[in-house]
Amino acid sequence: MENNVGQNWDNLTIAVVGATGVVGSEFLSIIADRHPEIGNLTLLASHRSAGKQIDVNGKTFTVQETTKDSFDGVDLAFISVNTAMSKELAPIAVSAGAVVIDDSSAFRMDDDVPLVVPEVNGQDVEVHNGIIAIPNCSTTPLAMVAHPLREVSPIKRIIADTYQSVSGAGGSAMTELREQSAALLEGRTVEVKSQPQQIGFNVIPHIDAFQENGYTWEEQKMIDESRKILHAPDIAISATCVRVPVYISHSVSIHIELQEPISVNEARERLSVMAGLQVMDDPANNIYPMPWGAAGKDDVFVGRIRQDASSCNGLAMWVVSDNLRKGAALNSIQIAEEIVERGCLGK
Amino acid sequence: MENNVGQNWDNLTIAVVGATGVVGSEFLSIIADRHPEIGNLTLLASHRSAGKQIDVNGKTFTVQETTKDSFDGVDLAFISVNTAMSKELAPIAVSAGAVVIDDSSAFRMDDDVPLVVPEVNGQDVEVHNGIIAIPNCSTTPLAMVAHPLREVSPIKRIIADTYQSVSGAGGSAMTELREQSAALLEGRTVEVKSQPQQIGFNVIPHIDAFQENGYTWEEQKMIDESRKILHAPDIAISATCVRVPVYISHSVSIHIELQEPISVNEARERLSVMAGLQVMDDPANNIYPMPWGAAGKDDVFVGRIRQDASSCNGLAMWVVSDNLRKGAALNSIQIAEEIVERGCLGK
Repeated sequence: MENNVGQNWDNLTIAVVGATGVVGSEFLSIIADRHPEIGNLTLLASHRSAGKQIDVNGKTFTVQETTKDSFDGVDLAFISVNTAMSKELAPIAVSAGAVVIDDSSAFRMDDDVPLVVPEVNGQDVEVHNGIIAIPNCSTTPLAMVAHPLREVSPIKRIIADTYQSVSGAGGSAMTELREQSAALLEGRTVEVKSQPQQIGFNVIPHIDAFQENGYTWEEQKMIDESRKILHAPDIAISATCVRVPVYISHSVSIHIELQEPISVNEARERLSVMAGLQVMDDPANNIYPMPWGAAGKDDVFVGRIRQDASSCNGLAMWVVSDNLRKGAALNSIQIAEEIVERGCLGK
Repeated sequence: MENNVGQNWDNLTIAVVGATGVVGSEFLSIIADRHPEIGNLTLLASHRSAGKQIDVNGKTFTVQETTKDSFDGVDLAFISVNTAMSKELAPIAVSAGAVVIDDSSAFRMDDDVPLVVPEVNGQDVEVHNGIIAIPNCSTTPLAMVAHPLREVSPIKRIIADTYQSVSGAGGSAMTELREQSAALLEGRTVEVKSQPQQIGFNVIPHIDAFQENGYTWEEQKMIDESRKILHAPDIAISATCVRVPVYISHSVSIHIELQEPISVNEARERLSVMAGLQVMDDPANNIYPMPWGAAGKDDVFVGRIRQDASSCNGLAMWVVSDNLRKGAALNSIQIAEEIVERGCLGK
């Protein structure tokens, strides 16, 4: 895709809000690779990070504090900050004429906001009111495997249990895992800071706040966002989202039930031709995806594909992807590419 | 239970095979607590470990090499070694007149071998041919929560995804996790030894060997053993078993579907009166079970109990238990208590 759109990127003015965060850093590294010809780039962050210097593609940029004037003349604004900040900044950027691609959960379920995984529902970018949202980092890989399967038969039910890395909670959580692991190895006391519980050598079945129904928001996001992306409001979905002591990449154990049976071979074939998805499934040779190996890669990886032993129309599989890349930064750049290619800027 | 049977233990001759392993150590610590009045105790292990001295309840025992004469005069033999060794040693012990409680998968699915979680099917110890098996450490907690629920309504389907600690693979895997974590924190290269892949800051969707159907033996054990323990061969079960970088305690995300609907309140009530099970479920105060806290505890802990969002007759929950205790050593001692209490020794 980038070959077709490359010619358009040298006239674009792009603002990156949250440029010093873990997703922001990944974003700058990916955009330097995919669009070295980019026109104007403005790096924005909080007051605290203003003044930092960041190298992008051999050029040094000084991070500026985000203000209400930051978006003047901006064509595309990538926003990767917390939900409250997104709610404040996105409307300002839209008023200034920018198209916003937002990484938070602030707008995802709004009716006039497309929620997009380009390989699944890229066409949804065509109708927007200035904001396009990217899904939660645990939702995107689920949508990526569900999509080619539902083209065979509608999906009835999905059960997904996650193994999510700490980078999903930002750079401070990565530091915390490192510090706690070192402390525990040396027999020192652990300090719990950004996470709800100790994450070093532990797992935490708690990501984001709890709702009345006992599900966390993270789990509810997987349910609601998957249905929206797949345009399938009737799929029955349950999820348990769990933080594991891993730095980068989220893994998901998925049990998916279709209306009609599908053979493992057909499923594997469908998954293998899906853009952005890589089948990594040769158990006889100990080949299956794992977070350590998926970190830094663009593709979503799927393995352990098998007939689900609890359902004749079911499949079980194991899906891993870099939550900072396809789960966030890469997906947002792909949305921008889709917008540019379809000429949907400035709508 | 121990209060009733205590009087019988001072006449027993007990052999512990695998006394120097992680389960063996846990066994000795638990038996010293529960049965300080124990009669004769023989600690057995491989040639390599013979001669080691182990303290039990203030008395020092010298570990002996296991030979074909080791079981003469033994009433109860606890065997916690690998499957091949169990296959060799258990029949010798039975011939010598001992009742064997075996921790391996060697005999679990044999028709004449009871597979027992005392709180669930303790009565099954009454008919045996000398060997009683304890379930796999990931199966036991599943059976413990399934049992009180199926008393409300038969279970149709279970989906279980596990987060299993390295101690399930023995002491060498615990050392490996420690060594790999330290190496990675210091930027050194990781050495993979006992595990199929790097476990430090990684997760591995592969425990035990792969079968033709794409499931691992570990997963198949959860399926087959749960059905046998619950006397419910028709329950549809699927599992994905995953190793996580945690030292002790296995966690399981469980989605369970009954024939009839059950309210969350009734489920919580049923679970809370189940012996050996502790409901730990107060999400508003960040209370739910985790492996770090469950290690060293006897109970199986269950939290995150909620109506499963994908099924009107379904419940989702999160179950954690110490795989070395209830998952192995404690369960085997409870089986012995059941045998002694029911007078089923020497059958």
